Amino acid sequence: MAVPDTPAVVIDVAAAKANIARVQGHLSALGLDVRPHIKTHRLARLAKAQIEAGAVGICCQKLGEAEVMADAGIGDILIPYNIVGARKLDRLVALARRVAMSVSADSDAVVQGLSGAFVDEPPLPVLVECDTGAGRCGVQSPKAAARLAQVIAASPGLSFAGLMTYPPMGRTAEVEDWLSDARHRIEAAGLKCSRISTGGTPNLHEIAEIKSATEHRPGTYIYNDRSLLAAGLCAPGDCALTVLSTVVSCPVEKRAILDAGSKALTSDLLGLDGYGLIVGHPEARITALSEEHGHVDLGGSDWHPKVGDQIAIIPNHACVVSNLFDRVFFRQSGTTYEPVAVDARGRST
Amino acid sequence: MAVPDTPAVVIDVAAAKANIARVQGHLSALGLDVRPHIKTHRLARLAKAQIEAGAVGICCQKLGEAEVMADAGIGDILIPYNIVGARKLDRLVALARRVAMSVSADSDAVVQGLSGAFVDEPPLPVLVECDTGAGRCGVQSPKAAARLAQVIAASPGLSFAGLMTYPPMGRTAEVEDWLSDARHRIEAAGLKCSRISTGGTPNLHEIAEIKSATEHRPGTYIYNDRSLLAAGLCAPGDCALTVLSTVVSCPVEKRAILDAGSKALTSDLLGLDGYGLIVGHPEARITALSEEHGHVDLGGSDWHPKVGDQIAIIPNHACVVSNLFDRVFFRQSGTTYEPVAVDARGRST
Repeated sequence: MAVPDTPAVVIDVAAAKANIARVQGHLSALGLDVRPHIKTHRLARLAKAQIEAGAVGICCQKLGEAEVMADAGIGDILIPYNIVGARKLDRLVALARRVAMSVSADSDAVVQGLSGAFVDEPPLPVLVECDTGAGRCGVQSPKAAARLAQVIAASPGLSFAGLMTYPPMGRTAEVEDWLSDARHRIEAAGLKCSRISTGGTPNLHEIAEIKSATEHRPGTYIYNDRSLLAAGLCAPGDCALTVLSTVVSCPVEKRAILDAGSKALTSDLLGLDGYGLIVGHPEARITALSEEHGHVDLGGSDWHPKVGDQIAIIPNHACVVSNLFDRVFFRQSGTTYEPVAVDARGRST
Repeated sequence: MAVPDTPAVVIDVAAAKANIARVQGHLSALGLDVRPHIKTHRLARLAKAQIEAGAVGICCQKLGEAEVMADAGIGDILIPYNIVGARKLDRLVALARRVAMSVSADSDAVVQGLSGAFVDEPPLPVLVECDTGAGRCGVQSPKAAARLAQVIAASPGLSFAGLMTYPPMGRTAEVEDWLSDARHRIEAAGLKCSRISTGGTPNLHEIAEIKSATEHRPGTYIYNDRSLLAAGLCAPGDCALTVLSTVVSCPVEKRAILDAGSKALTSDLLGLDGYGLIVGHPEARITALSEEHGHVDLGGSDWHPKVGDQIAIIPNHACVVSNLFDRVFFRQSGTTYEPVAVDARGRST
C-alpha cells in the first residue's frame, strides 16, 4: 500500500535486519547465546527473524506474549519474571507442555507456587533472579542466590537452571564478582550452574566484561530509539522504528502541532529533553504531549512546517510505542508499506 | 467471572454511572448541552450510557473513534480536531453520510481541505477552534476567529457552526471576554454563532463563569483519576477505574514490586509524585516503572505486602490507561467481573 494514514508506526525492515545481524554477530563472537527480548516488537515475524539469525530462543516478559509466540511456532521461551497465582501457573503448565519453557524466581514463595504447579509435570527449569545492583527484583546476595538454588533443586517439579540478572550499567566488575561468587557457592553445594543470563541493549558495548554470562537478552537493539541515539549507542540510520505524523496546525510562527500525542509516543522521557526526535529537524523540540497532539517548539529551528506536512519521529522509547498500535507498517523499500499485526500487543497478563 | 488475571483494568460501574449523572445534572442546571469526550473510555456501552443520561451527542478526538461509535449507533459526533489529508477527508465524508458530524478548524488550509471534500455533499458544520489561552491549536484572536468564520461560511460544502475551545484553568474571565468578543464580531458580520463549545473535567467547578458557552465536552469525569483526586476535584469513591495488580516480589523490607508497569499505568505524571495511588496504602509510593514492573517504596508505610497480594491502583491519568487494554472488566457488584471490549482502543488515526 501507499503511505499509511497517520499517526503510524513504520518499521524500516532493512535497518531492523541489520540490527539483528550486528548484535547477533557481536554476542556470538563473545561466545554468548543470544535470546532476544521480544517485548520491544511483540511480533512473531521478527521473533522468527531473530531465531533465523542464530538466537537460541526468545525471552518474553509476560505469559500472554509467550502464548502468542508459542502459537507462532517459537520453541524455546524464557520468562525472566516471577510467575505468581493459580491462573498464571495453570497457563505456564499449558505452555510448558508444548514448548521448552524456563522462568526465573527470587523467593521461596514463588518457588513454592511453581513447584506445586509442576509436581506432576516434567521438571521446569528455574533460574534464580539476582539483584546485581539494578534494585528491582532479585535475591540480594550471592549467598542468598546459592540458598534459593538449593531450594529450587530440592523442590518437586523443578530443576535449577542457573542465574538471571538485569545488570546495572557501568558496573560490570561488580556484577561479575557477584555472579562468579554465586556460581562458586552453587557449585560448592554440588549443583551445576550452566546458564547465566544477562539482559539489556544499552550495555551491549560492555557486556564482554561480565565473563560469567552464558546468554544475553537484548530487546531494544532490534529497533533502537532516541534514548540509545542520545547515549551514542546507535546512529540515526539504525533507528528502525519511526512514528509517521502529520502537521495539523501552525497556530503561531514558532509552534507546530502534530497528530501524534501521548497515545502514539507515550510520556516516557528516559531522562531526555522532549518526547521524540523529528527526523531532519533535530532543533525542533517536541516539548509537550496532549493525548492526540504533539506540541513542537520551533524557537531554535529554521524549519517552517505547513499544515499537511508529514514527518517521521524517532520516539524516546521504542518498546512502549510498539505496544500502542494494533499494527505497524513494514517498509521494504522507500515506497511500499505492508501492514503487519502486532501479534502480542497488549498481552500484558 | 471471578477476579481477572492481573494487571487488569476494573471499572466500578455504579461509580461511573454516578459520575455521569452528577456531571450531567450539574451542566444541565447551567443550561449547557453535554457532549462527553469518549477518549477517556473508548467504549460504546459507556457512550450510550452518557447519551441515555441526557448528552446531546459525543465528542471523539479521532476519526477511528468516531467510526467505531457510529457503528455502535451513536448519531451525533463532534471531532474537535483539524482533519487533514485526502484519506482522512474521505473517511469524514463517509461518516457524515451516516451520522450527524461536525468538526473544528483553525486555519484556511484546513478549511480548504474540508471544503474540497464536501463540495458535493450536504454542508458540514465547522466550528472555529479558538486558542483562549491553552496554547495548543486555535486561532489567536477574536478578530481572527471572526475572519475564519466568514471564510467557512463562504466555503462550498461547509456551514459555520460556532466556536470551540479548550479553555485554560483558572482564567474564566479572560476566556469569557475572548469568546464574547468573537461572538459579537461574528454576529456583526451577519453570521449566527449559536454553538460555543468548551471542554474539560478539571474546570467543571468554574465552567459556569464562561457564560457564552452553550455546550461542554468533559471526558475524564466518567472515571476520574489520581490527578483529579490530588486536585481535590473528586473523592476516592468517585474513581471508577482502577488497575488491579499483584505483588510479585518483596526483595528487601521496604521495596515491593508489582506486575503493573508502564505498559499498564503509562508514564504520565501530570505533575504528581509517583505513578499511581495504591488503594488503602496511600503512603506506599510507586516511585518508578519498568515496562512490566511497578517499583513501590514502602519507606513511609507500615504496609507489609506479601508475594501474591492483590491491590488496586488509581492511575494518574485514566484516559491513557484505557487505551492500553483490549478489554476492561466491569464490576457490577463486589464479586462479579464482566469482560468488556474497549471498542475504540488504539483507533488513533
